[in-house]
Amino acid sequence: MKNYQRLKGMVAAAFTPMTPDGNLNLPAIDAYAERTAASKMAGIFVCGTTGESLSLTTQERKDVLERWIKAADKRFKVIAHVGSNSLMEAIELARHAAEQGADAIAAMAPGFFKPGSVKELIDFFAPIAHAAEDLPFYYYNMPSMTGVSLSVAEFLHEGKKVMPNLVGCKFTHNNLMEMGECLALDNGAFEILHGYDEILITGLSFGATAGVGSTYNYLPEVYRGIFEAMEKGELEKARELQMKSIEVVKIIIKYGGGVRGGKAIMNLIGIDCGPCRLPISPVSNEEYERLRKDLLEIGFSF
Amino acid sequence: MKNYQRLKGMVAAAFTPMTPDGNLNLPAIDAYAERTAASKMAGIFVCGTTGESLSLTTQERKDVLERWIKAADKRFKVIAHVGSNSLMEAIELARHAAEQGADAIAAMAPGFFKPGSVKELIDFFAPIAHAAEDLPFYYYNMPSMTGVSLSVAEFLHEGKKVMPNLVGCKFTHNNLMEMGECLALDNGAFEILHGYDEILITGLSFGATAGVGSTYNYLPEVYRGIFEAMEKGELEKARELQMKSIEVVKIIIKYGGGVRGGKAIMNLIGIDCGPCRLPISPVSNEEYERLRKDLLEIGFSF
Amino acid sequence: MKNYQRLKGMVAAAFTPMTPDGNLNLPAIDAYAERTAASKMAGIFVCGTTGESLSLTTQERKDVLERWIKAADKRFKVIAHVGSNSLMEAIELARHAAEQGADAIAAMAPGFFKPGSVKELIDFFAPIAHAAEDLPFYYYNMPSMTGVSLSVAEFLHEGKKVMPNLVGCKFTHNNLMEMGECLALDNGAFEILHGYDEILITGLSFGATAGVGSTYNYLPEVYRGIFEAMEKGELEKARELQMKSIEVVKIIIKYGGGVRGGKAIMNLIGIDCGPCRLPISPVSNEEYERLRKDLLEIGFSF
Amino acid sequence: MKNYQRLKGMVAAAFTPMTPDGNLNLPAIDAYAERTAASKMAGIFVCGTTGESLSLTTQERKDVLERWIKAADKRFKVIAHVGSNSLMEAIELARHAAEQGADAIAAMAPGFFKPGSVKELIDFFAPIAHAAEDLPFYYYNMPSMTGVSLSVAEFLHEGKKVMPNLVGCKFTHNNLMEMGECLALDNGAFEILHGYDEILITGLSFGATAGVGSTYNYLPEVYRGIFEAMEKGELEKARELQMKSIEVVKIIIKYGGGVRGGKAIMNLIGIDCGPCRLPISPVSNEEYERLRKDLLEIGFSF
Repeated sequence: MKNYQRLKGMVAAAFTPMTPDGNLNLPAIDAYAERTAASKMAGIFVCGTTGESLSLTTQERKDVLERWIKAADKRFKVIAHVGSNSLMEAIELARHAAEQGADAIAAMAPGFFKPGSVKELIDFFAPIAHAAEDLPFYYYNMPSMTGVSLSVAEFLHEGKKVMPNLVGCKFTHNNLMEMGECLALDNGAFEILHGYDEILITGLSFGATAGVGSTYNYLPEVYRGIFEAMEKGELEKARELQMKSIEVVKIIIKYGGGVRGGKAIMNLIGIDCGPCRLPISPVSNEEYERLRKDLLEIGFSF
Repeated sequence: MKNYQRLKGMVAAAFTPMTPDGNLNLPAIDAYAERTAASKMAGIFVCGTTGESLSLTTQERKDVLERWIKAADKRFKVIAHVGSNSLMEAIELARHAAEQGADAIAAMAPGFFKPGSVKELIDFFAPIAHAAEDLPFYYYNMPSMTGVSLSVAEFLHEGKKVMPNLVGCKFTHNNLMEMGECLALDNGAFEILHGYDEILITGLSFGATAGVGSTYNYLPEVYRGIFEAMEKGELEKARELQMKSIEVVKIIIKYGGGVRGGKAIMNLIGIDCGPCRLPISPVSNEEYERLRKDLLEIGFSF
Repeated sequence: MKNYQRLKGMVAAAFTPMTPDGNLNLPAIDAYAERTAASKMAGIFVCGTTGESLSLTTQERKDVLERWIKAADKRFKVIAHVGSNSLMEAIELARHAAEQGADAIAAMAPGFFKPGSVKELIDFFAPIAHAAEDLPFYYYNMPSMTGVSLSVAEFLHEGKKVMPNLVGCKFTHNNLMEMGECLALDNGAFEILHGYDEILITGLSFGATAGVGSTYNYLPEVYRGIFEAMEKGELEKARELQMKSIEVVKIIIKYGGGVRGGKAIMNLIGIDCGPCRLPISPVSNEEYERLRKDLLEIGFSF
Repeated sequence: MKNYQRLKGMVAAAFTPMTPDGNLNLPAIDAYAERTAASKMAGIFVCGTTGESLSLTTQERKDVLERWIKAADKRFKVIAHVGSNSLMEAIELARHAAEQGADAIAAMAPGFFKPGSVKELIDFFAPIAHAAEDLPFYYYNMPSMTGVSLSVAEFLHEGKKVMPNLVGCKFTHNNLMEMGECLALDNGAFEILHGYDEILITGLSFGATAGVGSTYNYLPEVYRGIFEAMEKGELEKARELQMKSIEVVKIIIKYGGGVRGGKAIMNLIGIDCGPCRLPISPVSNEEYERLRKDLLEIGFSF
């Protein structure tokens, strides 16, 4: 079995830049990638929830991935999210990711027809993982978006038997006990990437060593600080930084959450990401003004 | 404003025939269409939930629709479900439906990023409805699958202002009070197609005159009987027939519900529909045997 | 086994009259009972959800029941709701109801620790039913309040074996298919009392012949009309009346629902019921004014 | 304003000892209290969820509290849970707790009629807190049992204005971000007692310094170790102990959860707690055997 290098530290969940009319803005990815490299990200997670994944067409997802791979230029890993309600599309995306030189693939569970057992989840993922068999495959566990809440530990343990490239999961759920179990599973055989930015210290308490987050994009120093403090056991320092991240998360919630509000912050800090695609509504000028003010009030530096 | 002819009676929700390896089986649609015509269906609802809609690729959805339009040969209406999490795909499917000569389009709400208000729902649907502006457009309300439960009455009333071709909705929800409201709305301006087969008499009590159902495919005489009895006010007769439908629905629930269990029944009655696509698991031979036995026990005639 | 007389037509769910300071106003029950008799109610359902059941102390529930039995004076049946999270309290209330001469008892499932199977539900109810073994016992099925949604049909069928006085259920749920099953169960062995006023015609379509409702209190002529029209198969007439009831229900929803809004209407029509007990907040004078106006607008006659 | 001493470390959530026939076994509290003192608990939380609170009558809750106060004999604090769906009962219990010399009161939100806003929650609790105005009052936040999920931070901040004895909350929810906010609120003005044993390290990461737990009763040395390790920043040690606690929690889940499974473990370790009251079903001998075996397998020492 192949030995994959583990991720360490921050993986940014990429927003997908769009033009004002809601089409892709591929060239904007280049400047975004520069910032990503400068922020010392370990990787970028492309076309996941933050990247408006299922709002894109299959072709658009390919285009976005290709641009990221080129722009990253090996300075950070590129993880391609290939999940889809359509098995056929997911397979096609997995194959494409492998061909184009992505460093890993990830997939969320289908949320329309929901797998009702771990076995069904494995059966669905197996051909996808197989379509990119040379790349590490992460299960993207996010019950709040997919409505699929099956035992992740059981999935990893059983899934590994038929998907040798299954290396772990992006754990975006507030069931921290389960996260702890997954980290301890099979003597730490799996990489568990922490998913909820606002509670990063809890995942790190349980032993996670990497995370995927959308707010990492505009608060890299805060999260880098958290990773470092937790590694040294400096809980109080980590906690203070976490409270800073929470202050920002509370603000983005007011503006529609991490995708809508987060994309607006990207625009405010000068990384052109444009609006979200419908059904996520555009951010008005008046909202931008209020958002900027809210951020200034908590000392956010643009 | 154009005047569209209303649907009356049964519209069958089409299963999508597949080959044993999970690919489309387009030729099988021809025999299926013959049966549909022979059963005196008013229409066929293509690539909706029963048709495994979101499990198909965009191209596959086009292929299935084209085959149905050809096979129907104007003997019954063809309604194209064009809903998608991707606005771009939905627009493309709507345009395609219009070009190919479908009789109407319908779309469910996006369930990944969920519209949070009626306004957001209208904003999402407007460009889709516009892309097939000469066809009647039905909102496909199905909170159990999409997780979107917004006021349908408000949507219809407000949506009509910006989507002149919005003619009504497929109401697949157990909120019968709301269904009653929608039927009475604006002096009966909207067509409300009843959605849950097992409680058809309740929608007809409230005044619905058409329904879309997957079990109509294999129990046409039962449902025709219900429509006729309710029209004449023969409640007891309607109720007896409804209990027959419930007996069958209870059985398909045991086999994974209307899509998985229903497709299996289609195969049993000689309309080749094949298996479902993953993540819906295939029906084993042993299950087919039990299903057949269960159906025989309640007097189902093959 | 004893043969109990079935309920027919309207059973009013009683509001519990209170003084402005939130204590019981027992004397107010007398005038309320006169109106109940004048409205030709088949019965009154005491200390259920509408009666703020679990907000009352055990002693208060006894006091309210005793007053109703006396005030009813055999003109209509008195059904005592005895459900409680505490088995001991429920048994005590059941025994008290029998001693005081109630005509029947009913109990909802405990919602704090929720029975996880029909067997557990039966085990919980058996000693309660036994404590009033000479009275008919109705299971009060209301998943929206209790969070307990177990098979009612299975409960009735299995429960009957250990609770000979189990005669049926008050079915307050929008799962109409299940209601249909319960009505048909064991050749109609059980009384299924329709629960949701705004969709009464759907339960009657399925064959129910009695209902328990809070809006019956102030719209008796509307619901009597529905019962009569449905018995004659006059669907259109029944539907028109149902739409009148829906208009009122939509208004009470604006004022906090059937208990808070309904109690306010009782006060407006001259049946002194006072405020609800906390946590249901009191209705302000300004709200009373708006409510009265809303009702006048739809032609409600005070 | 009075200055209350804060809790530090472990507060055990008390099981309520019962006889085989489901009545209280008050004398058994004495031996239980000895063990509690020997385990160096900072306090005991009486008649909360673990104590089957709402399954008890008001008189039983008083009896249990009185016995605990006497048996504790000032060796550890006694916190009386007084929450109830009935405001009148909660007030009565609060007054009783104060009269009998409890050290603090706590109350969960009413779960039958659910407060719909922080204001309604405050209005409900104010008279309860007032009825024991000399005791510190903790809000018991447990959305999984009550269905009430309102902003705890807002409740604490606003509630303090009308309830001077509101000192904090027992936070039994997996919304760790909110827990972090509550801990930081108003410069740490409130005590936030960690609630979910299996993720104690996450609450301590956020700065909690005390917890209330049912598994503390039979794993005191594990949790004491976690508290100590986290205080010293020894994350790895804390994590190892947490994994031990998770192993046990996974077992009790198999036996019906913390109340049913936990009470069984108490019996196994020699603290006579008897069965739970219905609707929680009794543990069979066969289950006891399996439970003992499961515990031995993970090295649990009896």
